[in-house]
Amino acid sequence: MTTEPNPEPAYVAVDWGTSSFRLWLIARDGSVLAERRSGEGMTTAARTGFMEVLASHLSAIAAPEGLPVLVCGMAGAKQGWVEAGYLDTPAALADIPAAAVRIPGVDADIRILPGLAQRDAMTPDVMRGEETQLLGAAGELGDGAHLVCMPGTHSKWVRLSGGKVEGFSTFMTGELFEAIATNTTLSHAIAEAGPISGDNPAFRAAVSRMVANPALATNQIFTVRAGSLIAGLSPVDAKARLSGTMIGLEIAGALSLVAEGTPIALVVSGGLGELYKEALAAAGLSASVIDADIAVRHGLAAGARALWSF
Amino acid sequence: MTTEPNPEPAYVAVDWGTSSFRLWLIARDGSVLAERRSGEGMTTAARTGFMEVLASHLSAIAAPEGLPVLVCGMAGAKQGWVEAGYLDTPAALADIPAAAVRIPGVDADIRILPGLAQRDAMTPDVMRGEETQLLGAAGELGDGAHLVCMPGTHSKWVRLSGGKVEGFSTFMTGELFEAIATNTTLSHAIAEAGPISGDNPAFRAAVSRMVANPALATNQIFTVRAGSLIAGLSPVDAKARLSGTMIGLEIAGALSLVAEGTPIALVVSGGLGELYKEALAAAGLSASVIDADIAVRHGLAAGARALWSF
Repeated sequence: MTTEPNPEPAYVAVDWGTSSFRLWLIARDGSVLAERRSGEGMTTAARTGFMEVLASHLSAIAAPEGLPVLVCGMAGAKQGWVEAGYLDTPAALADIPAAAVRIPGVDADIRILPGLAQRDAMTPDVMRGEETQLLGAAGELGDGAHLVCMPGTHSKWVRLSGGKVEGFSTFMTGELFEAIATNTTLSHAIAEAGPISGDNPAFRAAVSRMVANPALATNQIFTVRAGSLIAGLSPVDAKARLSGTMIGLEIAGALSLVAEGTPIALVVSGGLGELYKEALAAAGLSASVIDADIAVRHGLAAGARALWSF
Repeated sequence: MTTEPNPEPAYVAVDWGTSSFRLWLIARDGSVLAERRSGEGMTTAARTGFMEVLASHLSAIAAPEGLPVLVCGMAGAKQGWVEAGYLDTPAALADIPAAAVRIPGVDADIRILPGLAQRDAMTPDVMRGEETQLLGAAGELGDGAHLVCMPGTHSKWVRLSGGKVEGFSTFMTGELFEAIATNTTLSHAIAEAGPISGDNPAFRAAVSRMVANPALATNQIFTVRAGSLIAGLSPVDAKARLSGTMIGLEIAGALSLVAEGTPIALVVSGGLGELYKEALAAAGLSASVIDADIAVRHGLAAGARALWSF
């Protein structure tokens, strides 16, 4: 964790998701020397070759030969590059780097960080990639108990205490929103809608109703269709109501798992951040916000520090 | 409502759904003289012609010319044969027949029964077809307050009191189950599963967990995927857990709308009946059961009696 300026390239950090690839060339002093983003996620790389994708990006930024590379995310899944397994909860974030798996048969020291698994018969759960964001966010959060919300296709709510993941719960919010908006009778009501904003009253009302009575979720989803049919619900309000229902249901569920008053941290990037901030506000809650892009890079830096003493 | 034997054909009853067509030739004494079933629902008939579909079935059973025909269901939707509109709730079931709409430009007296609409800004709702089942079930139910559950693609829970529909709530259970099982990451976990049965412990456990904490619905849905990934959840148990989650969430929502102890009637046909009976039992509830196929025919008979004094 040197802070003296030293722009000499030290290592390469890669966040390799299902459908996205991000790479940073990091200097000895921790500064970012180069960055690459592409759509060559696990799905694409499984066809074209993981080493080939990585090499092409390293070549594009003229990275020195033989730098160590630390990878997190779906590249470590069973269907990814090399399976990196899981650490079981409860899991200390500091134990993650040592469990990284090295890519065999290549000269460079390339390692993939493991995910986390909750091996509970009733609430089995997995994450892969978010554990590295947590590792990066832990410094900002400090000690004590935190409820960390990581919104997305599969939103994670993590119960963190003193740098240890006690447990976590995935809510299939984003994927269910897409499936419902695209593949059900609601698609007629929503098709024409543009992007929605968190200050849309239909969004906030839907969140509030779910927090008050989450049992009515699949009824409230149907009112999107019925409202469009007989109550003049506009496409954008229809989409806002569906989105507010799914996010409100997630918030109600996450709150049911922790003691009231547990501080909430939102680890998020892009437009979802505003929606979740407004949704939490509609539920009478506030949260500190940590940028997810920065958190994952800080998590990879923490890993590189632990593994290679950078 | 004559009970003396009289096998002379009196009228034709048709239950015309989105994807199904059922027709009965009814005698003056109320007995069924002939029955037809086909897949020529509204979707098909909107292309091939409603009159043509009806005429072909009447011809197949050699029905006498000019008999009156009473239709319920989606044939009365805006995209159906002739729009039959809605009665607004609260609505007396006895008022439904008089609101039937006559098909113009044909010699025979063919009428379509209206649906019901709940024109409420927060909980707009519609039904079309189920109102006729309710009309047919009302005699068996008797007076007093009832909660009537009508399972299906769009399950309806109806608050009935003294022959009047006070209000109702649609839960998108069946359609959401299909969309989630087919169009999300859960499809991998479920693809190989055959039919599920209501006494599957995974089904009953999922129902119980939803009734206890419905807020965790989209988390419990994700555990189907995670359980398959790390906890050896079999395809049939995965499907049972998803089904139990969707039905349990529906039951939790319906119960939140009525006073505890309101008698529950289940109007259902086929395999769904067993699933719902077991789900209600897992939630600590019991219900009287009325066959939905018989209920719709009795409802059409009640309509024919009111309109044509049969």
